[in-house]
Amino acid sequence: MEFTIQQIADVLGGQVIGDTETTIHTAATIEEGKKGAISFLANLKYEEFLYTTESSVVLINKDFSPREKVNTNLIVVDDAYVAFSTLLQMYNQVRNPEKFGREQPSFVSETATLGEDIYIGAFAYIGENVKIAEGVKIYPQVYIGDNCTIGENSIIYAGVKVHHDTEIGKNCTVHAGAVIGADGFGFAPEADGTYKTIPQLGNVCLKDNVSVGANATVDRATTGTTLLSEGVKIDNFVQIAHNVKIGKNTVIAAHAGISGSTEIGENCIIAGQVGMVGHIKIANRTTIGAQAGIVRAVKKEGTVLLGSPAIDISNARKSFVIFKQLPELQKQVRNLKKEIEELKK
Amino acid sequence: MEFTIQQIADVLGGQVIGDTETTIHTAATIEEGKKGAISFLANLKYEEFLYTTESSVVLINKDFSPREKVNTNLIVVDDAYVAFSTLLQMYNQVRNPEKFGREQPSFVSETATLGEDIYIGAFAYIGENVKIAEGVKIYPQVYIGDNCTIGENSIIYAGVKVHHDTEIGKNCTVHAGAVIGADGFGFAPEADGTYKTIPQLGNVCLKDNVSVGANATVDRATTGTTLLSEGVKIDNFVQIAHNVKIGKNTVIAAHAGISGSTEIGENCIIAGQVGMVGHIKIANRTTIGAQAGIVRAVKKEGTVLLGSPAIDISNARKSFVIFKQLPELQKQVRNLKKEIEELKK
Amino acid sequence: MEFTIQQIADVLGGQVIGDTETTIHTAATIEEGKKGAISFLANLKYEEFLYTTESSVVLINKDFSPREKVNTNLIVVDDAYVAFSTLLQMYNQVRNPEKFGREQPSFVSETATLGEDIYIGAFAYIGENVKIAEGVKIYPQVYIGDNCTIGENSIIYAGVKVHHDTEIGKNCTVHAGAVIGADGFGFAPEADGTYKTIPQLGNVCLKDNVSVGANATVDRATTGTTLLSEGVKIDNFVQIAHNVKIGKNTVIAAHAGISGSTEIGENCIIAGQVGMVGHIKIANRTTIGAQAGIVRAVKKEGTVLLGSPAIDISNARKSFVIFKQLPELQKQVRNLKKEIEELKK
Repeated sequence: MEFTIQQIADVLGGQVIGDTETTIHTAATIEEGKKGAISFLANLKYEEFLYTTESSVVLINKDFSPREKVNTNLIVVDDAYVAFSTLLQMYNQVRNPEKFGREQPSFVSETATLGEDIYIGAFAYIGENVKIAEGVKIYPQVYIGDNCTIGENSIIYAGVKVHHDTEIGKNCTVHAGAVIGADGFGFAPEADGTYKTIPQLGNVCLKDNVSVGANATVDRATTGTTLLSEGVKIDNFVQIAHNVKIGKNTVIAAHAGISGSTEIGENCIIAGQVGMVGHIKIANRTTIGAQAGIVRAVKKEGTVLLGSPAIDISNARKSFVIFKQLPELQKQVRNLKKEIEELKK
Repeated sequence: MEFTIQQIADVLGGQVIGDTETTIHTAATIEEGKKGAISFLANLKYEEFLYTTESSVVLINKDFSPREKVNTNLIVVDDAYVAFSTLLQMYNQVRNPEKFGREQPSFVSETATLGEDIYIGAFAYIGENVKIAEGVKIYPQVYIGDNCTIGENSIIYAGVKVHHDTEIGKNCTVHAGAVIGADGFGFAPEADGTYKTIPQLGNVCLKDNVSVGANATVDRATTGTTLLSEGVKIDNFVQIAHNVKIGKNTVIAAHAGISGSTEIGENCIIAGQVGMVGHIKIANRTTIGAQAGIVRAVKKEGTVLLGSPAIDISNARKSFVIFKQLPELQKQVRNLKKEIEELKK
Repeated sequence: MEFTIQQIADVLGGQVIGDTETTIHTAATIEEGKKGAISFLANLKYEEFLYTTESSVVLINKDFSPREKVNTNLIVVDDAYVAFSTLLQMYNQVRNPEKFGREQPSFVSETATLGEDIYIGAFAYIGENVKIAEGVKIYPQVYIGDNCTIGENSIIYAGVKVHHDTEIGKNCTVHAGAVIGADGFGFAPEADGTYKTIPQLGNVCLKDNVSVGANATVDRATTGTTLLSEGVKIDNFVQIAHNVKIGKNTVIAAHAGISGSTEIGENCIIAGQVGMVGHIKIANRTTIGAQAGIVRAVKKEGTVLLGSPAIDISNARKSFVIFKQLPELQKQVRNLKKEIEELKK
């Protein structure tokens, strides 16, 4: 497939600077650009590559002005990252044709109901009373336990395990190896030092447009529901414990762990390797820096935290700077002590 | 299924305060209570909900006295959490009927021996000389390598991978996606900067009543055995490296990692995202706070540690408080310096 | 199988101290030694066991001199760890016979090409246009998406998921449950607070001799390639985000996470639970201590870092020592203040 730069600009509603008739047949990062490729510049860290890229055209933001001579063609758009992403989506749909139909052997319970235009890969397992809506893709080696429902056009990648009674909304994506609805980690200590297992009778609900990363885990509730609201995105290895509730459009990066019964608000951003204790509430639009440890509730919307235990980010940064200088600070205190001894004499 | 409050109290050996004849048909958390549901109050953080819950009955501890008027029925028991858990277990057994029999297609080596009353799900793989005892459940897409043994009534959930020569005791639970017995991370550096792979010839042994979380990993020993003793519970994403030995009834929360050859005592509690270096010993009843980094042996039983590198918890807490105030401390030192300069004049 | 100590010494090019004719039939760690076993002593932490081990022979380094009387036989070699590892490799090849042939049911696309002497386990899935070279082992329940290539003698363990267009070199090992080529975590924020998914159109390339740990994840690039160069070893639960590039012979321990587009040099050592931000470059031979947080580029080769945020290791260690003493330091400052007040009077 080949398109002229003008054709691409028309699709994106952008404006061409340079040769409108040059043809494009692939995409590349700006630093790995090559002839015939389209690239984009959004993060200014990469600006230097704009002046040396081999790509035939680069998408740039309309509020960006190059500070050197650009030797390639440009398409000016409102948001270069979003435009690039739109383009890739269109390209992807052509390049990786969607899967349809039922491969064999696969296991589908007689009591399951299957919508139109679905894909069921080989070695997939569909339990009793499962309801699969129109357009759903179930890749090979997926396990869907009894009584689950999966909404329209959701994609369940290879080897995902979805335990009984899970509800998955529309347009969700669950990446390979993720486990949805395994038992929460609930044990009651007994007098003899052993632990009694607390049965986990609730379920998991992923609302529409949720994305779950590869090998991530979302545990079923003890009773009630572990909830990922509409538009939530969790990355690889994220652990969501039993009875956690996550508000709309909250994003959680890799290796973060949310302990039992914690409620996270809407539009929060939680970076990688963050840990959060159980039974707390986190306000909307909270941002938490990587590796932070959240040990108490966050009440004020828009709070930004860092550190373990986490504190306000500007405070944390100041303290980290002095942490590095602690040997010097200690020395200063020792010197002051000596000077005071001198003065006393 | 419906039961009267009196019937439930009789089963639990509890005492009813309120209407004994109200009927119950489900369970709920106290804050999500509804008519016909039973809830419990153990953690006093949730006490406020006791006065507003819609649940028809709440289990409370006998040593608890409400400080406001309660509008629902109560059952007074010795331990509300344990009682609730007992109840859920009974309810669960009725609601999710146990699986039995062998689904097809599944792969069972001719040299494997299978006990009575077991379940083998579709696409499960049972290798050579495997011994599966009575009452074991092997869910779909499980892999059991050659020469493994699995004790009575253990449950191996969907997609678990158990490598050759692993021993699993009675009443164990291995949650979906866990990997038992993969090679330990052992490489010997060579003079040219490459690494030579050290073969991992030992195995893994899970004693009775062990629970392994979803997508957790327990690596096989280089030689000898990686051991999880009786009653050990590990959560999702816990990494147990080669030759680690964990004592009875020790509990390890999500994302914690234990490096090679470390030996952890009995009845320890290790919180989420803890990291531990290899080749150390941790005394019985050690408690380690979330995200702590353990870099040396713990010799005294009952030690409580926090921080990275970890120190005694009360020390850690005091230091964290001052860490937050470091900019202030630094300012104070600067001021003292100036004042001494003044005094010297 | 039994060998005399002299036979083993001959294979390893070592020198026997003690009885050359004693026979050996198994291997054991030095502290778990028993009659008929061979052990090794490399880490001097274990020296005490040399004097008490029940093993019939112990491999020791030629530059090691016992400080007490040794009651067992010794074989003196250049490097006891490497020699032991060589021995185990030979033993392993005899004890765990290699798998060959194609088990049924398995799913192999008609357009796939399969080399000689391969193993395809039951319930494995091989997609369109996949190329599997000679000697490759594909264990049960593996998923290989369309257009992948796997080089000679690579081993793909049970349940691994390899997404479309992945390239795997020769002699690679991918451990159970790992996910190669799932979509990177790429979302563009929209004005209404929702996120638009950025299609991930690139691929993953593992060069020769790469090892990927159990349940680890390597995400496909947005465009271009996520690259693990020759000889890279990553442990269980390591997360490699989209467009990351890792240089030759770099080793990354469990639970470490590398964010998008970061480039790590050759022969680096990255310990467990390390986190690294995206879009930075790390110089060759960088060493990073456990749980460190890397927030900026490392320009100097051979740098050693620790802490979160990470700083030079010797600085970090000094600061950690004073961190523990912060309450004392604060007290000293308070006392100095008082003394100055006194002096002023």
